[in-house]
Amino acid sequence: MLFGPGPSNPHPDVVDVLGAPMVGHLDPYFMSVMDGTMSDLRRLFGTTNHHTIPMSGTGSAGLEGIMLNLLEPGDDAVVAVIGYFGQRLAEMAKRAGATVRTVEAPLGQIIDPARIEQELKKKQAKLVAVVHAETSTGACQPLEDIARIARDHDALFAVDCVTSLAGIPVDVDAVGIDAAGSCSQKCMGAPPGLGPVTFGPRAIAAIEKRRTLCPTWYLDISLVFQYWGKEGAPRDRAFHHTAPVASLYAFRRALELIHEEGLPNRYARHRDAHEHFVAGLGALGLSLFTPAEHRLPMLNVVNIPEGVDDVRVRFALLERGIEIAAGFGPLKGKAWRVGLMGVNADPARIDVLLDALEEILVAQRR
Amino acid sequence: MLFGPGPSNPHPDVVDVLGAPMVGHLDPYFMSVMDGTMSDLRRLFGTTNHHTIPMSGTGSAGLEGIMLNLLEPGDDAVVAVIGYFGQRLAEMAKRAGATVRTVEAPLGQIIDPARIEQELKKKQAKLVAVVHAETSTGACQPLEDIARIARDHDALFAVDCVTSLAGIPVDVDAVGIDAAGSCSQKCMGAPPGLGPVTFGPRAIAAIEKRRTLCPTWYLDISLVFQYWGKEGAPRDRAFHHTAPVASLYAFRRALELIHEEGLPNRYARHRDAHEHFVAGLGALGLSLFTPAEHRLPMLNVVNIPEGVDDVRVRFALLERGIEIAAGFGPLKGKAWRVGLMGVNADPARIDVLLDALEEILVAQRR
Repeated sequence: MLFGPGPSNPHPDVVDVLGAPMVGHLDPYFMSVMDGTMSDLRRLFGTTNHHTIPMSGTGSAGLEGIMLNLLEPGDDAVVAVIGYFGQRLAEMAKRAGATVRTVEAPLGQIIDPARIEQELKKKQAKLVAVVHAETSTGACQPLEDIARIARDHDALFAVDCVTSLAGIPVDVDAVGIDAAGSCSQKCMGAPPGLGPVTFGPRAIAAIEKRRTLCPTWYLDISLVFQYWGKEGAPRDRAFHHTAPVASLYAFRRALELIHEEGLPNRYARHRDAHEHFVAGLGALGLSLFTPAEHRLPMLNVVNIPEGVDDVRVRFALLERGIEIAAGFGPLKGKAWRVGLMGVNADPARIDVLLDALEEILVAQRR
Repeated sequence: MLFGPGPSNPHPDVVDVLGAPMVGHLDPYFMSVMDGTMSDLRRLFGTTNHHTIPMSGTGSAGLEGIMLNLLEPGDDAVVAVIGYFGQRLAEMAKRAGATVRTVEAPLGQIIDPARIEQELKKKQAKLVAVVHAETSTGACQPLEDIARIARDHDALFAVDCVTSLAGIPVDVDAVGIDAAGSCSQKCMGAPPGLGPVTFGPRAIAAIEKRRTLCPTWYLDISLVFQYWGKEGAPRDRAFHHTAPVASLYAFRRALELIHEEGLPNRYARHRDAHEHFVAGLGALGLSLFTPAEHRLPMLNVVNIPEGVDDVRVRFALLERGIEIAAGFGPLKGKAWRVGLMGVNADPARIDVLLDALEEILVAQRR
């Protein structure tokens, strides 16, 4: 049982289709798989953006694709950093050639949107980027105000929703997000390996106005859509790179299961699972690191009590087939990270974890 | 039955492990999967290079990783172009910032190594890149002489062996290849999605001497090996991106099957399958486009006879569950591409294709 920050356990129905008969990546049947994938992914992102696909790499590849397509040398970017994954966005933006300014908050905290506005008033930027669900601290950064501020200052707004998508609403069009990137695992319920992204019209217009060639051929959005189908001519498809067929089967099935459950039900299930877990932790005398007002439901950062050996507990859990993760960076040894994602956002499965944790803690304290 | 240029049919035993229980990407068991993968991949590439892993993207991502790590703005590269995939290497090198000179040959032909030497004498280059097995024309570019010439002129030698690896010998160390990239499918026998690469000591030294930051964070070799284990400290592993666990299970199993069969046996099987197919084609009055002296065994470009409808034949085959591919670029409508890769390098399976082709051609001519 994978209760870490990811990979999460894929849904059993998703695992079943991994081995479905392979077809060619230009086979008419596979074209219909691609169409269904794009349409279901748009519904999940809450967008009508044509440019909405799973990129052929992990969530990190999708995010890098966003940065390398939207930014080029000479551009300015403002990146909100509330933990490691924000730092990583800043690093990717820097490698894309941009001058990057970061707005930082202490671990567990979030960024006051007014600070982003201040930064944009100081100097215009082409892009504002934030992490929606910071996997290293368990904090949720609200998007609405920053989206509005970015738009008011004529900046694009890009969001890392790797941990949030399919667990809490992302709502790309309603919020006003120009580009977003997630993953195929975590709350999505497929194995890791794909990086779902969406690019809105303002992002595409910015890409068309680039002064330099995008340094990546593999993740260049205009090339990738030669294969996925251009806007206005979605049936006109040509080879770019060989699609990861088996991974796409799995991802397609995961999207179907998400919509069969229904988005409101899925979000409620993740919320309820979190509340069940927090109540159970309370009964064990354990507390969460992240302040309640901006806690994520799917990623829980649990304080390790005084006198408890981090590594011994995690290995004792692993011996029972249960994975939780160490704290990240400065929180290593001080906290555990517990993911309640996809099929694991389930009280019965969470009770298995809580029971095991209780037994191990009691044994250690003896 | 996938007789196109890829994806090929994965081995059934490989498909079986796709759905094996998922573990965390930092789980001790998974670390042993990674170690076994690296060690088996080194044997297949014929190298002792520490930096030998499957990158988390398709074969194209691995090749782009090679170009973006080895080249930076201001560098010179010479690329041998004998078809589309050579053009693509040149395009990737250009996007990496290099000034690219191409040495080209007509479709079906290969490059005389003396022409590469001429180009290097004209002006030094940091990198010489070639495609070993050109999937668009079915031609095999011998590597030994170009490797020697590159080394004599103090240039790195990079090879696209996407179609050749596990079908014909690549022999990285014996030939003197500094970087090579392949895929997980085709002759490898796993689903598409991973890009096995190897970087030798001269390549790593060149990367360490870069003047600029590598524009890709995702494919930056020095970062990727934080996770796969640094040279000299292979057990010291830290998070980079979440590994595509299921794809790596499959790739690991494919490598095991390759070594269980034995490399000489596997190469002989691909060669024999090719000869069986060519004999069968001859009996049907069909011929190959690529001159015999540099034909690839695993990728056969078949001339479409006068009066035969390309698309109708391919769709009639597809209706029987058999895929072959259209000719690429200028060869579209004039040739078919038939891959005999992995499990399909088998006379019994090839006979199914030949029998179907015969029936369809007879029916069309009636």
